[in-house]
Amino acid sequence: MVTHLIRYRHEERVGWGVVSGGVISPLDGNYARTADLIERGESDWRSAATKVGNLRLDDVEALSPITTPCRVMCQGANYRQHAIESGMNPDERAFNLFFDKTDATITGPDAPVVRPAHVALLDFEVELALVMRQEVSTPTAITPENLHEYVFGVTIANDLSARDVQLPQGQFLKGKSYRGFCPTGPVLAVLEPEDVPLLDSLDLRLDVNGEPRQGDNTANMLYRPAETLTELTEFCNLSPGDVLLTGTPHGCVATSPPPLVRRLATAMLPEDRLWASFIAMNKRKPYLKPGDVVNASIRSANGAIDLGVQRTTITEPSSEKGAV
Amino acid sequence: MVTHLIRYRHEERVGWGVVSGGVISPLDGNYARTADLIERGESDWRSAATKVGNLRLDDVEALSPITTPCRVMCQGANYRQHAIESGMNPDERAFNLFFDKTDATITGPDAPVVRPAHVALLDFEVELALVMRQEVSTPTAITPENLHEYVFGVTIANDLSARDVQLPQGQFLKGKSYRGFCPTGPVLAVLEPEDVPLLDSLDLRLDVNGEPRQGDNTANMLYRPAETLTELTEFCNLSPGDVLLTGTPHGCVATSPPPLVRRLATAMLPEDRLWASFIAMNKRKPYLKPGDVVNASIRSANGAIDLGVQRTTITEPSSEKGAV
Repeated sequence: MVTHLIRYRHEERVGWGVVSGGVISPLDGNYARTADLIERGESDWRSAATKVGNLRLDDVEALSPITTPCRVMCQGANYRQHAIESGMNPDERAFNLFFDKTDATITGPDAPVVRPAHVALLDFEVELALVMRQEVSTPTAITPENLHEYVFGVTIANDLSARDVQLPQGQFLKGKSYRGFCPTGPVLAVLEPEDVPLLDSLDLRLDVNGEPRQGDNTANMLYRPAETLTELTEFCNLSPGDVLLTGTPHGCVATSPPPLVRRLATAMLPEDRLWASFIAMNKRKPYLKPGDVVNASIRSANGAIDLGVQRTTITEPSSEKGAV
Repeated sequence: MVTHLIRYRHEERVGWGVVSGGVISPLDGNYARTADLIERGESDWRSAATKVGNLRLDDVEALSPITTPCRVMCQGANYRQHAIESGMNPDERAFNLFFDKTDATITGPDAPVVRPAHVALLDFEVELALVMRQEVSTPTAITPENLHEYVFGVTIANDLSARDVQLPQGQFLKGKSYRGFCPTGPVLAVLEPEDVPLLDSLDLRLDVNGEPRQGDNTANMLYRPAETLTELTEFCNLSPGDVLLTGTPHGCVATSPPPLVRRLATAMLPEDRLWASFIAMNKRKPYLKPGDVVNASIRSANGAIDLGVQRTTITEPSSEKGAV
């Protein structure tokens, strides 16, 4: 059975608990890092899961179940329809597209996120995030059968993206890494070996101001967790508490024109004019703006996995000047 | 005065020392991580620097002065002539191009590096690496005047790149992150405040099998360390011992065709055929192959900073099967 953990602040104390039916059963121990919980919290959360909760979920502040420093590895264009909307043919994909975000992006599931002053095209991407269980520092064969030895649990991540930085600059790192650009949580669902097949049929959903914008199922993932982690270990070390974001379904604001149009435009326009025109056309689209509220959720149809609801309010930069 | 540190193995013990005239003066303390040396080794290395060395550099195995885990942040196309060879106009650059490598790449300055079986176009990139001194977790104004508070020292890095993965896949992370793709060291030169201006006139040089392939001076950098670190802190946390690779000068094997040719080819060929043709044409070029020896060095003309010589031998994958 899946155990639904939450990290929270209550009366100035940060703790972990097992959540069930809107009530939290607190763990006894202190686990400053997610890795501490993974490495030495098992008997504690197993024990808490058997007790009746004594703290209402509504009375706490939910925090990111992922602590930093950590690696935030990502897959791009990993759902059929989103690959099409990004200008690719999912049946002709020759490779699993990897990139990463910095851990400056990690923030809580209800924390406001600042749209930086120079960003106009702020986009959302709801994603299933896998939370790693152990150190891996050599190429490792990870299969659906041994996946639970490597993946501790799953949570929700929103891979917020400044399209007007990410796309014209080509490399995704900067445009996807501004501070707060990865709301995470609220629930970290710990998987037993028999729970792993549930990962293949989770519903993802994202609304903006109550309007549905993204809705899909992990059944439509192109490169699945075991094969993706196997390839990742060829070029990346992993530590407990690191995360892999497994790509977003269709419905983001940014889309790519069809390949022929793209190729002709590339031939006819210098690169700077091409992007100036992309940004001008895109400014009419419903990108995120200060005041918008983004709700993101992931769950299995039967409720065996329910990662809760992320609620992110987009805000203006503070009018006080920072160090820069 | 610059202090030249080295991390080394001698008779099964790993230690740090101050190197001068080919002789090492060992530090007394143990510093498992580069961050430990930075945070609590100062009086130790200052004291060692005043003593006469008792260990010959030739008698030790030089190790990477960068320990893992760490962040390996990078700048792309940051030297005038290399930007031109990458198909850009350095006078029209609108942004500082950031990407990163995973820390699975970090290896010693004399360690052999495996060319993965599926890689044909293995390229070299000698770079000046800045080693961070302190935690930074908010946007921070870094200037030439306060740079020494943020940068502990500098070392050599080779940003090895599988062009046949990096370029067709678009995102640089994977093709630049295979295990061992960042030889680092041998010398970590610690800067006093008055040494910072030396960073603006360092000679970089890289030879393959004794033939000169890259030669340039940090005077030709486009985005300089202080402005680059200031921007980096907008989207990235930094910890002691993290590194920033500041870009490579011209002379890499891979070059880009002129913009007009590139745009026409993009218009006329589907993307997979475009890259198949790029790879076929590039296979005739002198990319690194097993048996090649790469020597990389960085120093100031007057020798006040001398980061030593990296000597990397490229090898075949072992015939023994690994886990994958």
